Amino acid sequence: MGGLRTLPWYVAGSQVLGVACVVITGVWMGHYRGGYAWDGSAQEFNVHPLCMVLGLVFLYGTQHPTHTLATVLVYRVFRNETKRSVKILHALLHMMALIISIVGLVAVFDFHSSAKISHMYSLHSWCGMLTFVLFFIQWLLGLGFFLFPWASAQLRSWYLPLHAFFGLLLLTMSVGSCLLGITEKLLFSIMETYSRFTGEGVLANTLGLLLVCFGVLVGYVVTREDFRRPPNPEEEALSVHFKTLSEGEIPSSP
Amino acid sequence: MGGLRTLPWYVAGSQVLGVACVVITGVWMGHYRGGYAWDGSAQEFNVHPLCMVLGLVFLYGTQHPTHTLATVLVYRVFRNETKRSVKILHALLHMMALIISIVGLVAVFDFHSSAKISHMYSLHSWCGMLTFVLFFIQWLLGLGFFLFPWASAQLRSWYLPLHAFFGLLLLTMSVGSCLLGITEKLLFSIMETYSRFTGEGVLANTLGLLLVCFGVLVGYVVTREDFRRPPNPEEEALSVHFKTLSEGEIPSSP
Repeated sequence: MGGLRTLPWYVAGSQVLGVACVVITGVWMGHYRGGYAWDGSAQEFNVHPLCMVLGLVFLYGTQHPTHTLATVLVYRVFRNETKRSVKILHALLHMMALIISIVGLVAVFDFHSSAKISHMYSLHSWCGMLTFVLFFIQWLLGLGFFLFPWASAQLRSWYLPLHAFFGLLLLTMSVGSCLLGITEKLLFSIMETYSRFTGEGVLANTLGLLLVCFGVLVGYVVTREDFRRPPNPEEEALSVHFKTLSEGEIPSSP
Repeated sequence: MGGLRTLPWYVAGSQVLGVACVVITGVWMGHYRGGYAWDGSAQEFNVHPLCMVLGLVFLYGTQHPTHTLATVLVYRVFRNETKRSVKILHALLHMMALIISIVGLVAVFDFHSSAKISHMYSLHSWCGMLTFVLFFIQWLLGLGFFLFPWASAQLRSWYLPLHAFFGLLLLTMSVGSCLLGITEKLLFSIMETYSRFTGEGVLANTLGLLLVCFGVLVGYVVTREDFRRPPNPEEEALSVHFKTLSEGEIPSSP
């Protein structure tokens, strides 16, 4: 009851947390780890954390509460006509997240090759790569099922809960992979001083906790029932009507 | 439609994955890390991963799909009378998880003290301790709201979605903390050989992925709509009836 009025605050909160994560990653790599470059050096490695937090956490994550808000607004204010625009925006933001994370992946593979370090041996790399591959598949399936008129209404409604489940799972896996990356980077760089609560260690740990808070906030917004369902029977009826409309938007000719 | 018939398979799958995680942790610490002891040595540390995976992942996690199955069975077969037994079992299993994880925490604090290593400096320790504290609070609140007749039906129905959200969040945080612990332990023990894909590294990475699979499977079971809601209107009606009954079970005298 009145839950929807609090939604913009959650959206704002997730934006603030997301920006804080990106800024702290930027400061950690920029100030403590020697800045950025693209020459196979350790400075090229520094591009990797920044791109992954920017792409797979911030850009990927913040749009989910925003999408919930947009869906609610579209649904309450504009009805059906702008639903497609929201979908296209959703797909485009995911594409930006995808491109930025590809840059981040190239940076770390390039650095490993230059420094003659094996690829893909750590748990961080296994989890991170799994996340990226699943994210790419999820994006392709999302395009195919929801944006293009290829799938039947039945197929769409079968896939929608899976898409939503994997959407949140992928954010969780992104955040988890970042935390593994933070731990690895700290133990590779400051193993001797980490246990003395040095500035860099505390900053990176704080980044880890903020990433967790970000994931929790986004997860809360996208799973909370009264952000997804209309709160009163009148709107419930409208919702069914709206659902029929939106699921019936598939053209009659394939 | 027929989704509920697949539920026992998911439950069995989560049990198998959970047992596999405990066994692999046991083998890793027992075979590669020199076994177990309680004398402040590195062998005492080895008790820590085993207890945390056994308590906060296996015991805590497997009971959620089992609880879903039990609730469905109770709801379909026994109606209301055994609901309280399911709740008591749920609380007792959580208490066991809590006790085992306390043993695991004592092991690592004891080891750190003996080896003169600082406590609570790493991201793993921050995330793990946060998980443990939240788990303890969640357990206390669960007891107070659902098992004892202290809270009103209104308060219970307000708290239930939060309890469910934090239930899954805590499993996610447990799995994430385990993965951070695996990464830390590998970099402390086999930093030189980790990148050469040695047996220990691959085993521990595999453990990490299995923990993720376990968390994903449990998360899927407890969030899947048709495992939570009755699939046809007749049962929907029964559900409302049942809910009224169970929420009305608070005694009239406080």
